[in-house]
Amino acid sequence: MYFASDNSSPAHPSVMEALARANQGYMGSYGADPIMDEVRDRIREIFEAPEAAVYLVCSGTTANVLSLGTFCPPWGAIYCHRDAHIEVDECGGPEFYTGGAKLVLIDGTDAKMDPGALRAAIGRRTIGDVHHVQPGMVSVTNVTEMGAVYSATEVAAINAVAEDHHLPVHMDGARFANALVASGATPAEMTWRAGVDVLSFGGTKNGLMAVEAVVIFDPAKAWEFELRRKRGGHLFSKHRYLSAQMQAYLADDLWLSMARASNGTAGRLAQGLAALPGASLVNSVDANMIFAKLTRAQHKAAFAAGAKYYLTEPGAGLDEGPDDEPLTCRLVTSWCTSDADVDGFLAACKS
Amino acid sequence: MYFASDNSSPAHPSVMEALARANQGYMGSYGADPIMDEVRDRIREIFEAPEAAVYLVCSGTTANVLSLGTFCPPWGAIYCHRDAHIEVDECGGPEFYTGGAKLVLIDGTDAKMDPGALRAAIGRRTIGDVHHVQPGMVSVTNVTEMGAVYSATEVAAINAVAEDHHLPVHMDGARFANALVASGATPAEMTWRAGVDVLSFGGTKNGLMAVEAVVIFDPAKAWEFELRRKRGGHLFSKHRYLSAQMQAYLADDLWLSMARASNGTAGRLAQGLAALPGASLVNSVDANMIFAKLTRAQHKAAFAAGAKYYLTEPGAGLDEGPDDEPLTCRLVTSWCTSDADVDGFLAACKS
Amino acid sequence: MYFASDNSSPAHPSVMEALARANQGYMGSYGADPIMDEVRDRIREIFEAPEAAVYLVCSGTTANVLSLGTFCPPWGAIYCHRDAHIEVDECGGPEFYTGGAKLVLIDGTDAKMDPGALRAAIGRRTIGDVHHVQPGMVSVTNVTEMGAVYSATEVAAINAVAEDHHLPVHMDGARFANALVASGATPAEMTWRAGVDVLSFGGTKNGLMAVEAVVIFDPAKAWEFELRRKRGGHLFSKHRYLSAQMQAYLADDLWLSMARASNGTAGRLAQGLAALPGASLVNSVDANMIFAKLTRAQHKAAFAAGAKYYLTEPGAGLDEGPDDEPLTCRLVTSWCTSDADVDGFLAACKS
Amino acid sequence: MYFASDNSSPAHPSVMEALARANQGYMGSYGADPIMDEVRDRIREIFEAPEAAVYLVCSGTTANVLSLGTFCPPWGAIYCHRDAHIEVDECGGPEFYTGGAKLVLIDGTDAKMDPGALRAAIGRRTIGDVHHVQPGMVSVTNVTEMGAVYSATEVAAINAVAEDHHLPVHMDGARFANALVASGATPAEMTWRAGVDVLSFGGTKNGLMAVEAVVIFDPAKAWEFELRRKRGGHLFSKHRYLSAQMQAYLADDLWLSMARASNGTAGRLAQGLAALPGASLVNSVDANMIFAKLTRAQHKAAFAAGAKYYLTEPGAGLDEGPDDEPLTCRLVTSWCTSDADVDGFLAACKS
Repeated sequence: MYFASDNSSPAHPSVMEALARANQGYMGSYGADPIMDEVRDRIREIFEAPEAAVYLVCSGTTANVLSLGTFCPPWGAIYCHRDAHIEVDECGGPEFYTGGAKLVLIDGTDAKMDPGALRAAIGRRTIGDVHHVQPGMVSVTNVTEMGAVYSATEVAAINAVAEDHHLPVHMDGARFANALVASGATPAEMTWRAGVDVLSFGGTKNGLMAVEAVVIFDPAKAWEFELRRKRGGHLFSKHRYLSAQMQAYLADDLWLSMARASNGTAGRLAQGLAALPGASLVNSVDANMIFAKLTRAQHKAAFAAGAKYYLTEPGAGLDEGPDDEPLTCRLVTSWCTSDADVDGFLAACKS
Repeated sequence: MYFASDNSSPAHPSVMEALARANQGYMGSYGADPIMDEVRDRIREIFEAPEAAVYLVCSGTTANVLSLGTFCPPWGAIYCHRDAHIEVDECGGPEFYTGGAKLVLIDGTDAKMDPGALRAAIGRRTIGDVHHVQPGMVSVTNVTEMGAVYSATEVAAINAVAEDHHLPVHMDGARFANALVASGATPAEMTWRAGVDVLSFGGTKNGLMAVEAVVIFDPAKAWEFELRRKRGGHLFSKHRYLSAQMQAYLADDLWLSMARASNGTAGRLAQGLAALPGASLVNSVDANMIFAKLTRAQHKAAFAAGAKYYLTEPGAGLDEGPDDEPLTCRLVTSWCTSDADVDGFLAACKS
Repeated sequence: MYFASDNSSPAHPSVMEALARANQGYMGSYGADPIMDEVRDRIREIFEAPEAAVYLVCSGTTANVLSLGTFCPPWGAIYCHRDAHIEVDECGGPEFYTGGAKLVLIDGTDAKMDPGALRAAIGRRTIGDVHHVQPGMVSVTNVTEMGAVYSATEVAAINAVAEDHHLPVHMDGARFANALVASGATPAEMTWRAGVDVLSFGGTKNGLMAVEAVVIFDPAKAWEFELRRKRGGHLFSKHRYLSAQMQAYLADDLWLSMARASNGTAGRLAQGLAALPGASLVNSVDANMIFAKLTRAQHKAAFAAGAKYYLTEPGAGLDEGPDDEPLTCRLVTSWCTSDADVDGFLAACKS
Repeated sequence: MYFASDNSSPAHPSVMEALARANQGYMGSYGADPIMDEVRDRIREIFEAPEAAVYLVCSGTTANVLSLGTFCPPWGAIYCHRDAHIEVDECGGPEFYTGGAKLVLIDGTDAKMDPGALRAAIGRRTIGDVHHVQPGMVSVTNVTEMGAVYSATEVAAINAVAEDHHLPVHMDGARFANALVASGATPAEMTWRAGVDVLSFGGTKNGLMAVEAVVIFDPAKAWEFELRRKRGGHLFSKHRYLSAQMQAYLADDLWLSMARASNGTAGRLAQGLAALPGASLVNSVDANMIFAKLTRAQHKAAFAAGAKYYLTEPGAGLDEGPDDEPLTCRLVTSWCTSDADVDGFLAACKS
């Protein structure tokens, strides 16, 4: 009954097997391994982007900050949602890697950026006025921090605003697979066809040990990205172990199967919670992340039964207050969450 | 017959087993895994440094640049050897992570910094003159880029100069295990007892997939290091996989056994080359890296037999020139180099 | 009838005379001029701060960004009002000079930071959580961008919040003299006695050519400031010309007289506008900056009479729309604004 | 008898008059003053460069670091002479403004970069190897730190190497006027016709209070320069006072007259020293800076007579040692050095 984060789940057994296979003899270092060649080809194929530059790095933060550093100048504004991971959870990594760009925070429901609010924010800075940072790029997160999924059409609407100001678009896809299977879009539809210039294509939260791909659809920036990656300390000498994880991820659509599994158990859990007297969902559950209100008594029962998850109510104390007070929590499922975990959790809440 | 780099060798089987063991169920993320607690304790014990702060990162460049960024201000001079990895092979990572510090290059035989040259260089910048960068820190590499090993006494001699100017000392120990077994010093003698403040404690080149520890002997800088690590994109969510590698590395002194193995095969190779007519060693072979001169004919024979290694002669062309012309090469052994590899190489050269 | 900005006014004749006096023969460079010694002493005396470090720079942006860079680490949050000059008008200078700190925007009436909003914002970042930038410092602007003046008590209330989190406080005093004469506080009361650690003490907008002092009340950071100033290209070789301007500024309280003059004409203008049918003041006029609503017809008449000032209404077009529509404008007086300028403006509006 | 630095000389009376003229009424700020329009036109005319972007800043360091930051990426190598001001005397400003570029030091007589040494240095970094910083730009100083003057042909020879690697060329012309009148070249011949892309065109050392122009011959980088200038805190609000100084500098070729004057007195002094028994010149005297050896007795006599200048002998103590020991010194003349100063100095040495 572990729902605290998909970051705490193990790697899929196929990933471990791929690592073992890759661990044979000597192999070219720094990305010059044959597995990477295969991975690059496969990602280009999946995204229908034969020219895309493809790189592997070790964390979502890394994928994001290198992407932002490559596409936004130091005097640029990066437009993102107020709750975006790049704003809230990367300890200023974007500012560090861009040489001091400014994150400009946009509002929107369920941590989705509102295109109108984006347009208004860009308009507030006079383009060409040297006193202001200049519009630099736009970054969207899919799945959002509130568990919502942008459709390809919604991404395209953001991009329409960006394009009016010639701004590149980054997608933080730490949970890209979950977004994709939820939306029904193809990888190409969700990214470059909707205007995305660079994608952080997550793997770690979805069954890998520690690999994310960066996919740059227009390869003009590829060499700059490589220099920034090296300079940032993110070029692996024994790169084959990154390649092998991604190889396993893509083989037989494992990435999609794992995302379907976690979205599936999240859906089952959401249904159960919706039907649970005293409980309610905070917003619609699009992928593998649930925000729900349970009563204090229900939370106490769940924790007592061994469930692990976070209360997100600001200042919420589990121990003090009336038993029927609703307290918000976040529940995240992963590729290895079982129906039994879900059912056990729901049963505990009912007890 | 692979002698190109220890970076191209596989991970030790024990490391793979430790990864498999760690891959069970959910585990705390971002360093809050119990394996890390064990690793931290073990490293403190090995270094006789119960207060040391210990962190794991994914590459030697990372360990170096985070260490330099933590200990040297933006207006500091970092004194290092002209051939140091931080100067030559990190694409300006130290400048990036320090916010623009200046590497000041010191000469010395076999890529060892000469203490007198260091003292002279520090003296050339007037301390307290605002027009000049100020002395910031000293960084030594052990094993050096020319394969030489500093003794603990030699490190202490460098430190004596550093201490006169209140400068912290960093050791780039990408091949620390090799240096240690070659020198006969204990980990404490080679580091903090000789004045080292922060160590990049290598694992990747010596049998791991991708892990280096950073050991900060005075923990006052620990929190700053943690913030810089996160901001640099170097904090792993599924940190347990770094911990597990290091756990296997330290268990039963595997790290020392592997270093002894590679130093041993390098010694065997050096002896063979010294005895080979037409061949000669460029400098003494202290650890697992050999610089040697072989004739063009010998190189041709070795490459024809399938050997992999680098010619380091500037502008050396294998194909053009007299057969008896000596051309310098670098040969690196790793934990899995076999005596048969060595003997096969020597036999090929003789043929 | 020039009310566009105090930045466009000339220097006071006494300043020109001081420059001429300073322009005799050779004099020590880089701050080693005897005029600077006199200026330093005088500023320490004025602020009752005999230990303060005092530096002269060429612009308000410079004073601000060097102060922020010296007091806030790269991973820090700088809390400032949403409209602060450091956020809006310095093209990311604070991010550049801090190595990537994050400006966190606080609301409050008339561009004054609300202490409660500040406390809430600091509380939203978990101190000690490595994923977030850490509270770094607080910056207030006095006079604010909306023309309001913080009293010393109000500054102290901000500082009380800062102190609870051990945060240094910066005051952007581009119009410090205007704030001081408006508030009736002494320089010490308005700054270090109210908790200010570093002050940008403006001169340029108030009758100098281009000089601002930075006053650091605790000199522990003085040497770091000097290095950052040099590195930023802000140490003048012929420093005497900065010193001479500041010398003239402080002599016979010229700085206070000039501020009283500009506050005075602003008050006269405000009174006139309050009495003008169709016109109204947007907020109270504390110093030398007025935000007022005039009808389109009044604006047209004023511009036709040669008045210079800015409409601040977003998207306001002077030419299109009904004559009686109120449009907001900003009117700034300077040390050399005359009563005749004010009366002429008012007369034009009435015509 | 002041020969310590041209930085300590006063401004020319014409400059003060121009400032007084400019100090009338209100004028557009941030470079929008009509004097700047005139200055821009005049500089374009002088350099026969009608498209050049022209900016004014307050110091030579500023002109240099903004130029380097605009033309060199963070991962670039900046090739300069080992003694260059940007390496030795700017406290890491170039590293700060470039985001961490690396200065690569080239040897050459009299602080002139040797084109062959430059070519060799570029060749040592493998272009396209991600582990190394990439060749970024070349910076030459004219007059050099050893008082030598590059001819236009010599600059073109440096540029030929730069061009082979597509590297932009910067000229640090803190003493550009002195170099120009010494060389006999036209401004165009010395700069863009010889391959210079961006020039720091000095004024401060040659009779201004504090103004240098940056001349960017290809204006494609102009907007980026403007943003970097603002962000660096180097855009003056009351810009007219920079413009006025430069206006006076260029009027009636004052800049050339002043440079001729200082070169002239330096020549007179050099001749005198060459003829002085016991004294000798260290290198040829091309402009207004002399390196000479005088005996300790001569130095003592000169200082006793009130002369001001620097001994440059490392560790030289005036007071200890034999009277006839030669000690090297640097003597700099300025626009206001008189023949009497020179003759007085020579007489003192003889006494």
